[in-house]
Amino acid sequence: MPDTQVSTPAAALLPAIRAIVGERGLITDPVDTAPYAEDWRKLYRGRTPAVIRPANTAEISAVVRLCAQAKVPIVPQGGNTSMVGGASPMEDGSEFILSLSRLNRVREIDALDMTMTIEAGVTLKAAQNAALEAGCMLPLSISAEGTAQIGGVLATNAGGNNTVRYGNARDLVLGLEVVLADGEIWNGLRRLRKDNTGYCLRQLFVGSEGTLGVITAAVLKLAPRAREIAVALCAVPDAAAALDLFGRFQAYDATTIQAFEFLSGAGVDLVLRVIPGAVLPFARPAPAYALVELATSRPDAGLRASLEKILETALADGVVTDAAIAESEAQRGAIWKLREEHSEAQKRAGASVKNDISVPVSKVAELIRRATAACEKLIQGVRAMPFGHMGDGNIHFNLVQPEGADPAWFLAQDHALMEVVNEVVRDLDGSFSAEHGIGRLKPYLMTDWRGGAELAVMRRIKQALDPNGIFNPGRVLP
Amino acid sequence: MPDTQVSTPAAALLPAIRAIVGERGLITDPVDTAPYAEDWRKLYRGRTPAVIRPANTAEISAVVRLCAQAKVPIVPQGGNTSMVGGASPMEDGSEFILSLSRLNRVREIDALDMTMTIEAGVTLKAAQNAALEAGCMLPLSISAEGTAQIGGVLATNAGGNNTVRYGNARDLVLGLEVVLADGEIWNGLRRLRKDNTGYCLRQLFVGSEGTLGVITAAVLKLAPRAREIAVALCAVPDAAAALDLFGRFQAYDATTIQAFEFLSGAGVDLVLRVIPGAVLPFARPAPAYALVELATSRPDAGLRASLEKILETALADGVVTDAAIAESEAQRGAIWKLREEHSEAQKRAGASVKNDISVPVSKVAELIRRATAACEKLIQGVRAMPFGHMGDGNIHFNLVQPEGADPAWFLAQDHALMEVVNEVVRDLDGSFSAEHGIGRLKPYLMTDWRGGAELAVMRRIKQALDPNGIFNPGRVLP
Repeated sequence: MPDTQVSTPAAALLPAIRAIVGERGLITDPVDTAPYAEDWRKLYRGRTPAVIRPANTAEISAVVRLCAQAKVPIVPQGGNTSMVGGASPMEDGSEFILSLSRLNRVREIDALDMTMTIEAGVTLKAAQNAALEAGCMLPLSISAEGTAQIGGVLATNAGGNNTVRYGNARDLVLGLEVVLADGEIWNGLRRLRKDNTGYCLRQLFVGSEGTLGVITAAVLKLAPRAREIAVALCAVPDAAAALDLFGRFQAYDATTIQAFEFLSGAGVDLVLRVIPGAVLPFARPAPAYALVELATSRPDAGLRASLEKILETALADGVVTDAAIAESEAQRGAIWKLREEHSEAQKRAGASVKNDISVPVSKVAELIRRATAACEKLIQGVRAMPFGHMGDGNIHFNLVQPEGADPAWFLAQDHALMEVVNEVVRDLDGSFSAEHGIGRLKPYLMTDWRGGAELAVMRRIKQALDPNGIFNPGRVLP
Repeated sequence: MPDTQVSTPAAALLPAIRAIVGERGLITDPVDTAPYAEDWRKLYRGRTPAVIRPANTAEISAVVRLCAQAKVPIVPQGGNTSMVGGASPMEDGSEFILSLSRLNRVREIDALDMTMTIEAGVTLKAAQNAALEAGCMLPLSISAEGTAQIGGVLATNAGGNNTVRYGNARDLVLGLEVVLADGEIWNGLRRLRKDNTGYCLRQLFVGSEGTLGVITAAVLKLAPRAREIAVALCAVPDAAAALDLFGRFQAYDATTIQAFEFLSGAGVDLVLRVIPGAVLPFARPAPAYALVELATSRPDAGLRASLEKILETALADGVVTDAAIAESEAQRGAIWKLREEHSEAQKRAGASVKNDISVPVSKVAELIRRATAACEKLIQGVRAMPFGHMGDGNIHFNLVQPEGADPAWFLAQDHALMEVVNEVVRDLDGSFSAEHGIGRLKPYLMTDWRGGAELAVMRRIKQALDPNGIFNPGRVLP
């Protein structure tokens, strides 16, 4: 701990906090690096007097009460996998990190209710596994699931691949336990499908990115475990054809579409070139691809036959030019690998600019077409590699630097590129942050996009629930 | 308009309001009766200086601004079908009724997005029909759908028969347009499946029963139109067997269960006795029944065969003692009639006490068993006729007076009966208001059931969003 920190209000609380959480509940050295004070994307490296790791909700309540009295800010932290620096402390060392990691019990699973009561510090992967063991499925999947924790997943309203069918994290929450800004505990761990008794507080905390309260536990809805899964990669002429294909699957049986992902030809080419073991299941590359995953719990659904039937018609209509249906789990993995290695491949190709954007589903093809053209006009040779969740309207519109260009020069074009993309997004009534949230990276965009009455109401809610601004100050709201 | 009202602050605003909404937008006589100042259940008959009927959101904004300045309270009103008096004005004539009826346009339907942008005054039935015409389905159905309007449906987070599959009204909302307590308009009519840009305001207004803002329009999610529907009535030994049967359907394919309703033997007997045309499709009555409706958009699903297969096994296991599968739409209607006529039949049998309660789905059978026993112990001869949405844990635990008893005497036992039922509900971690809300009838229960930190947060939110308390004062919060 550097000397300059010892006299801060935060550091002055350390003895009292130690008395609450014990030695095991406090880390003071080293804390100013990953995995605590540096974020996942290495965008921010802050400082903190300590990482507080309470063992249970009562300890969190006592710690928050103490910090509230001293007006010392707190950054709640789960797996620290935020894409927007949402869980990293400020550089001035004024903020405690409150780690939820020790609240890691699955309290209860009920396979008839199809619910799971779970603490904030359980990783998403562990939660998925616990659901599977009970014969159910927690239908939420994101790249960071091995590290991301339930508390953060809910605080940021995580999305991912299965939103097209199951919605976002928000849609899976029946109940919450939250420590409020004065240290009071709200026990709202109800597992009811219907409960109209006052304001829906849980949905206020979900997605508030730790600025209104600390989520300590939750009741989540589960889904039946899939008995049959069918995966296909489809070569298509363009994004419009991919969207046409999505409409066909949706019209047939929307309840079976577990994922519908778009991949640009350029993005797949790059993966094939730089990722060992990546293989295209076609003789020649295509301008674009759609990855579709169907699943059902119904034992005799004949999903594979349905998939073939829809693809046959699409092939006949020229909507699909080639299709590969996975014949084994290994082949399923190989198809998904082409999608999942996009981020890694782009990293290896030099600097890249990421846009996590969404539009109404019907406008995704137009978004891809127009935003690609706008970026290519702005920077000659820029490689647009849009990919992601076409079925829910959320595209990761990533731009890779021109081959051979200076990465630093390209990154300096960051804002200009985001602006031309966002202009198209705005014109299509979309969002500048689909699933990654606001965190520290994007509050400056809030005034322009969500200003006026909307931002005013958000500010009034923040003031009402956290009048001293001790939870994640400076995040989300500009 | 009685003379005593002319000098109130509300009446003093009438000329200014008339200047905003015009003659067509104002009803001053007669207003102190149904359909305006008396509620659907005839529990409350209030008084109002006028029913204001603005033509659009801008007019509502101007009216609210005026009332906010004068601190005159407003009761937003849609179809006025609240079960808890939520849209009826107080008896002192101090409150305007703000009718949304003239905002009755379906603004847009997009069959690929599967969304509908719709104004608050459209009836639920009209909205369902508009969705069907577009080849989709608005998957929300309640008894009052012919009269209830979208604004009220959302403000009260309506539930109904299809919650088991599609969730409550809350789960169908992607965007909202709301007039706030200072008259500002929040345009949050986004039709995005993913949008993480700040607090989720829409879910705060949904279910707030008009106490935080006036919902003027919404974007709702649609579902694919069903191509196959299969309905069966199943005779079962008891509620536990009905719940067992639900588990079997859920394990087979939860996505096809469109409704799963429980009916008591006593309730069905009463319907058969007093409702003309009601017919039991079995040779002899049973202790209880389950009504299951399966539906799918998949054209070749073989739903009927699935239904038969599950019922065969259930019959073999003694879980079901008899089953009738509808062979036609007329037969489907006849089976549903036994369920839908419960309220009417009970009305004809004398006085009755209604409890709209919910518990976790796995505890519904225990709820029915224990609450029935508790009521029968309290009042000899009382006829417990629980029915409703077993698949989502919501039972209408209605109690009909003993045959030949004095209705007034029975109604005086109202609170005692509700208390013994609620004691069981509470023990099973349930809710005293599942889908009907709080309105004017149940705020007194909020302190006991939702008190402490939860109610404190609700009050802070009310204060933050409606500091002068002009929207529906005295409703929801005690």
